[in-house]
Amino acid sequence: MSNATSSPGSGADRLARAALTYLAEPGDPALGALLGICSPAEVLDAIKADMLPGTGTGPGCGDTAASRAALDRALGRWRARLPGLPDDERIADTCRDGIRLTCPGEAEWPGPLDQLGQARPYALWLCGNTDLRFACSRSVSMVGSRAATSYGGHVAGEIAADLGERGWTVVSGGAYGIDAAAHRGALAAEAVTIAVLACGVDYPYPAGHADLFAAIAAQGLVVSEWPPGRHPARTRFLVRNRVIAALGGGTVIVEAGERSGALNTARHAANLGKPLMAVPGPVTSAQSAGCHRIIREWGASCVTRAADIIELLSPLSAPDALAPGGDPGRPAPRNPSTGRSPSRDDLDPDTARVLDALPTRGGAGTSTIAVEAGVDLDTVLRCLGRLAGYGFIERCDRGWRLRKP
Amino acid sequence: MSNATSSPGSGADRLARAALTYLAEPGDPALGALLGICSPAEVLDAIKADMLPGTGTGPGCGDTAASRAALDRALGRWRARLPGLPDDERIADTCRDGIRLTCPGEAEWPGPLDQLGQARPYALWLCGNTDLRFACSRSVSMVGSRAATSYGGHVAGEIAADLGERGWTVVSGGAYGIDAAAHRGALAAEAVTIAVLACGVDYPYPAGHADLFAAIAAQGLVVSEWPPGRHPARTRFLVRNRVIAALGGGTVIVEAGERSGALNTARHAANLGKPLMAVPGPVTSAQSAGCHRIIREWGASCVTRAADIIELLSPLSAPDALAPGGDPGRPAPRNPSTGRSPSRDDLDPDTARVLDALPTRGGAGTSTIAVEAGVDLDTVLRCLGRLAGYGFIERCDRGWRLRKP
Repeated sequence: MSNATSSPGSGADRLARAALTYLAEPGDPALGALLGICSPAEVLDAIKADMLPGTGTGPGCGDTAASRAALDRALGRWRARLPGLPDDERIADTCRDGIRLTCPGEAEWPGPLDQLGQARPYALWLCGNTDLRFACSRSVSMVGSRAATSYGGHVAGEIAADLGERGWTVVSGGAYGIDAAAHRGALAAEAVTIAVLACGVDYPYPAGHADLFAAIAAQGLVVSEWPPGRHPARTRFLVRNRVIAALGGGTVIVEAGERSGALNTARHAANLGKPLMAVPGPVTSAQSAGCHRIIREWGASCVTRAADIIELLSPLSAPDALAPGGDPGRPAPRNPSTGRSPSRDDLDPDTARVLDALPTRGGAGTSTIAVEAGVDLDTVLRCLGRLAGYGFIERCDRGWRLRKP
Repeated sequence: MSNATSSPGSGADRLARAALTYLAEPGDPALGALLGICSPAEVLDAIKADMLPGTGTGPGCGDTAASRAALDRALGRWRARLPGLPDDERIADTCRDGIRLTCPGEAEWPGPLDQLGQARPYALWLCGNTDLRFACSRSVSMVGSRAATSYGGHVAGEIAADLGERGWTVVSGGAYGIDAAAHRGALAAEAVTIAVLACGVDYPYPAGHADLFAAIAAQGLVVSEWPPGRHPARTRFLVRNRVIAALGGGTVIVEAGERSGALNTARHAANLGKPLMAVPGPVTSAQSAGCHRIIREWGASCVTRAADIIELLSPLSAPDALAPGGDPGRPAPRNPSTGRSPSRDDLDPDTARVLDALPTRGGAGTSTIAVEAGVDLDTVLRCLGRLAGYGFIERCDRGWRLRKP
């Protein structure tokens, strides 16, 4: 059995990961452990065969006495969903329907998700043309209370718009209240925003946000670990929160009651070692009590405006990021050491070769680019991510294409 | 020349310290240095004689070449005020006029003032019957913007009242805005509050606070380093702030603009190593910007209610301090190790002896008590402070008396 799990999988592995999002709940520790040592296709085959990898005569994966019982129970859970698993063709159809999949190790996969370890998503379903990895190269997660006050909604919207104008992506959870205000602020600034849902990307929950999700998909991304059509559930929101925390360079809480779910996202951010920030409010407001508590007790930074957040997330490039008159709209990451957008001359030889391998018109797939550039697949993926981060290229239906200056 | 400056001075030294408050501005580094090595009476005599200690043939104090010029200039400053210096009788009269003096080393002198080193006040003028050292044994300094918002005024008043109800003294600066709200909150809770002025304790500034100062003197203390009759000046407020910071166990800022003088008090508290706290507010309010900044940049604790403050200032006794149904009104310090008010049985032999030496009716002076108890003056002072802190005794016109249970 293969041990390669961080390099992109074969077409079979991709389809297997898509199938696994139908069979298992995200964050299932048994599946996380199996994917650490077996390929996705091997795991899927084993589930279908009702025979866990490692059973039989040879040495296998996951074959320790201690974890045997847990794996057996997990196998039962996953197999119970087999009848509802769409066939490969139907899954492929889904991926042509404006919805696409990105898997660990692929060029669009954001590296910070790998910090989640065994709780890393099996794959992510995306809706929207923005490149996920690129969008997350300068990103802030902003979440808060659904029962936001007008103060909280105002502040979240203002800060998100400011972040968007300065080229930062706002990641949130698409809920009523602070989440919606954060998304709307970013949209108003014509910036990229990412909604991470706890249901299928085609399942508008809350229903009142159908238009909001359409607008987010048109200008940014709607993202989910759950497959299309899957409905939300209470526990899914908590599982989802780790992805919100992981996709942002840091997490800002704007209004949270003492028991707000936003504090769960805050905890994930802190556990990931990411900067945790909170916006204060009147001490007379219960909706700010959670913010004040994490400032006092968890050491969250007290932030009051976009500039505070940017300074915390990029202390070196902050003066540049704060400079007025930057390119509005799409994020335009700068070279951190020089503070300006890198030119072709700044690229290392491999990256320059990969850039030269992109066709002048239309797009090309990763393997085509690798052959054309004459570098191996791992290298081409690393270079594509860097080029997307620098703003030279962007994702398209056919793979990657040059970005218009 | 004597080197004893921390034990209480003679009557002559007391009068000299009173006179020095007329001649020198508080915090004058030249006078602070001189008082570190000469007695107050020696310094006063030297000023009057226009001959600095150490000039002449013998070895003296302050007689280094480097400091010579500075001392000469200082001597000029102090001598310029000699014509306005009241004679000893007039100073003594002042002290019968409802105004009294307390000097370093005396029983009422709060120990934390000595942390100011050479910037320690020469003496403090007091108006009010409360014992200063006792009042400061559980105290919080609370200051903020003069141009407070209704939110800030409301929060300052509520927190101060809560602190007062739990037996804590509120120290502030008597200014409009947050200071006044803090004093009024404490007064409403029938608690002790201390106003530290930047002018004479008989000089109501601002004039609109004459009634407030009268109420504070009746229930707590009005305190100043400046002698009676002295008017305020812009620089005096900044000099005064170090005393506000020193008299509180910690300092809380409630509303401060970016350039508020309250931040000067905050800086003094931080420099003294005292807990620095700030109450957050709406990020849309300029009057909270200073609070948010010191939370973010100076590491001030984010506090939202009296319980937060008490927990920070007395982590061990906080559960006790928070217990409902405590003795309202006068502070009633507890024994930190047991959480209850100490009884006579808890006292060490010296302290018990000093307590027994107090007359059952009326009061007695320190030296009378020392003779009666058969202990030396240093010990009697230490024990009197402890007994006042425990609530057994209190200051009166004649010195010390037993406090009614």
